[in-house]
Amino acid sequence: MNLDTLAPRIGEWLRGSGAESDVVVSTRLRLARNLVGYPFTNRANLRQKAEVESRLCQAILALEHHRLTYVSVANLNSLDRQLLVERHLISRELSSAIEGPRGVAFDERESISLMVNEEDHLRLQILRSGLDLESAWQAADRIDDLLDQQLEFAFSDEFGYLTACPTNVGTGLRASVMLHLPGLTMTKQIEKAFKALQKINLVVRGLYGEGSRALGDFFQISNQVTLGKSEAAFLADIREATTELISFERMARNTLCREAKQMIHDRVARALGTLQSAAVMTSEEALELLSAVRLGVHLRLIPDLSPVVVNELSIQSQPAHVQKLVGNALSGEERNAARAKFLRNRLRDIEAH
Amino acid sequence: MNLDTLAPRIGEWLRGSGAESDVVVSTRLRLARNLVGYPFTNRANLRQKAEVESRLCQAILALEHHRLTYVSVANLNSLDRQLLVERHLISRELSSAIEGPRGVAFDERESISLMVNEEDHLRLQILRSGLDLESAWQAADRIDDLLDQQLEFAFSDEFGYLTACPTNVGTGLRASVMLHLPGLTMTKQIEKAFKALQKINLVVRGLYGEGSRALGDFFQISNQVTLGKSEAAFLADIREATTELISFERMARNTLCREAKQMIHDRVARALGTLQSAAVMTSEEALELLSAVRLGVHLRLIPDLSPVVVNELSIQSQPAHVQKLVGNALSGEERNAARAKFLRNRLRDIEAH
Repeated sequence: MNLDTLAPRIGEWLRGSGAESDVVVSTRLRLARNLVGYPFTNRANLRQKAEVESRLCQAILALEHHRLTYVSVANLNSLDRQLLVERHLISRELSSAIEGPRGVAFDERESISLMVNEEDHLRLQILRSGLDLESAWQAADRIDDLLDQQLEFAFSDEFGYLTACPTNVGTGLRASVMLHLPGLTMTKQIEKAFKALQKINLVVRGLYGEGSRALGDFFQISNQVTLGKSEAAFLADIREATTELISFERMARNTLCREAKQMIHDRVARALGTLQSAAVMTSEEALELLSAVRLGVHLRLIPDLSPVVVNELSIQSQPAHVQKLVGNALSGEERNAARAKFLRNRLRDIEAH
Repeated sequence: MNLDTLAPRIGEWLRGSGAESDVVVSTRLRLARNLVGYPFTNRANLRQKAEVESRLCQAILALEHHRLTYVSVANLNSLDRQLLVERHLISRELSSAIEGPRGVAFDERESISLMVNEEDHLRLQILRSGLDLESAWQAADRIDDLLDQQLEFAFSDEFGYLTACPTNVGTGLRASVMLHLPGLTMTKQIEKAFKALQKINLVVRGLYGEGSRALGDFFQISNQVTLGKSEAAFLADIREATTELISFERMARNTLCREAKQMIHDRVARALGTLQSAAVMTSEEALELLSAVRLGVHLRLIPDLSPVVVNELSIQSQPAHVQKLVGNALSGEERNAARAKFLRNRLRDIEAH
């Protein structure tokens, strides 16, 4: 597969078409599985990793219904690896592993990704636009079942699925929703909201998972523990918390529109104006500005701009995407100029009202 | 005179047509004079101030060639007073005096202003576009001579002209040039340049004279002392220092264009973009952004924008001007919205290249 074809388009999960998409960007569901008879990835030698990759690939490519493509991440250059990270198809860990056979299989819509030889032998991930935990779970469960028919996963009657890190033992399930919470940030309620989540064992992360900073008011909420409850119970926890956060965020936006209308309008209009005019821009700034523009779109302050374009630009203004779109590797400075030009052109003639 | 007609236009001295106008916004020359037989303004009672006003008015209005209009500042509301301050036709001191007859005479081009009962009985001011000390001095000297034929000014053979504050004794002359020095600011050479000025008894002030902050990289350079040299010698000092500052500023701009072209371009383009998009804006921010735009115009980065428009907007975005242009008094918040709208409309469709 030529990864150059990825950059100009975005995955189905970023279409912004799902439920509650004014607040919930996407839903991600992940299952961790390991093959019986092999050490976990961090203890396996190269030969064992190669065997794991080979066995998993065979099983994955047999999932004919899903038309998956397998990409050997070990053979990719760093730009291509970064591209897959920016698209959330692989983790930063899989990208930056020093050596060893590893890879990812995904479908054309980028709604399924199966990482091989990440922390666990297999990380099955389902991505959906908006809030869509149930359908994501059904898809994950179905693929898990199909793979289970071909492979033997490490499972203990006492603990459930066995994983490299104890935090994933049990269901091996991590469900996350990516939320856009500018209202709670601006009204300074975000810390309070997150403290409440911690009490119910949910964890908040930045845009690119564990250890990543929260940028542009985007936050990932996911379950902390994977053990001691059924998958359905975990999903119910996340759904409940998400539903509450959505309602808090909408209230905050309403309050802002009522009490600080001009400030919001100003922030949105300036963000758009800066994106339309800057000559150089970092990816962090682009994301912050696009966050304000996204809010503006959902508050109907920028009627001519579609949410899907904002999602597209958020992904495409990331470093590897900028280089892929230009067609060659760029230095940091060149990237900042290319990014600014790309954003200027894409947002030309859009006005905030 | 109806002051409402002032706001939509600007004084001749802001046409940006004078010499060295890429760096020198304007030249201002001021003479301080007091009438014999009356205490200085701060010691005069209301009757004496009224007599001073009456005698000076008579003499001023007899200067038929100049078609001067006299405005009694004591009778103006605060908005009109502020308007005259923003146009540099009167000082903040004259505007904010608690009571007493006082006023200003000026011509339609706003190149002459004669303040009555400011710190001194008479403050004669000549304003010119760009660097134009000689012609300003000739104009001031001519009017001074004409007034001298009708009035008796307090003069000591030992000290020269007597003034309320000892710093003005002697020639009563203050010559200032308003410089735009973004290059020296950005290359962090401004402090060094100003220290050199202090050594030769020149003083640096902000946009609105004594005690005012430097905003938008605009600085007024003027002579500190007025005693012990001829007028020509003071003017020569200022001219020499200004010529050097102009050359330093141009070198700094050239260096920036050579070594930080993208940064300059970015700063100019973002400033224009923000002016074209913001929904609310303070006058300070407007001035800072217009300063960057002014630099961009002179670096030919904004080919469709004339320097005179930038000068106009710098004056017209001040608080009293915004209210005059809208046609009614506005709260601070309303002003910030009206200013942003005015600037958006005036700069619509202008592009930075």
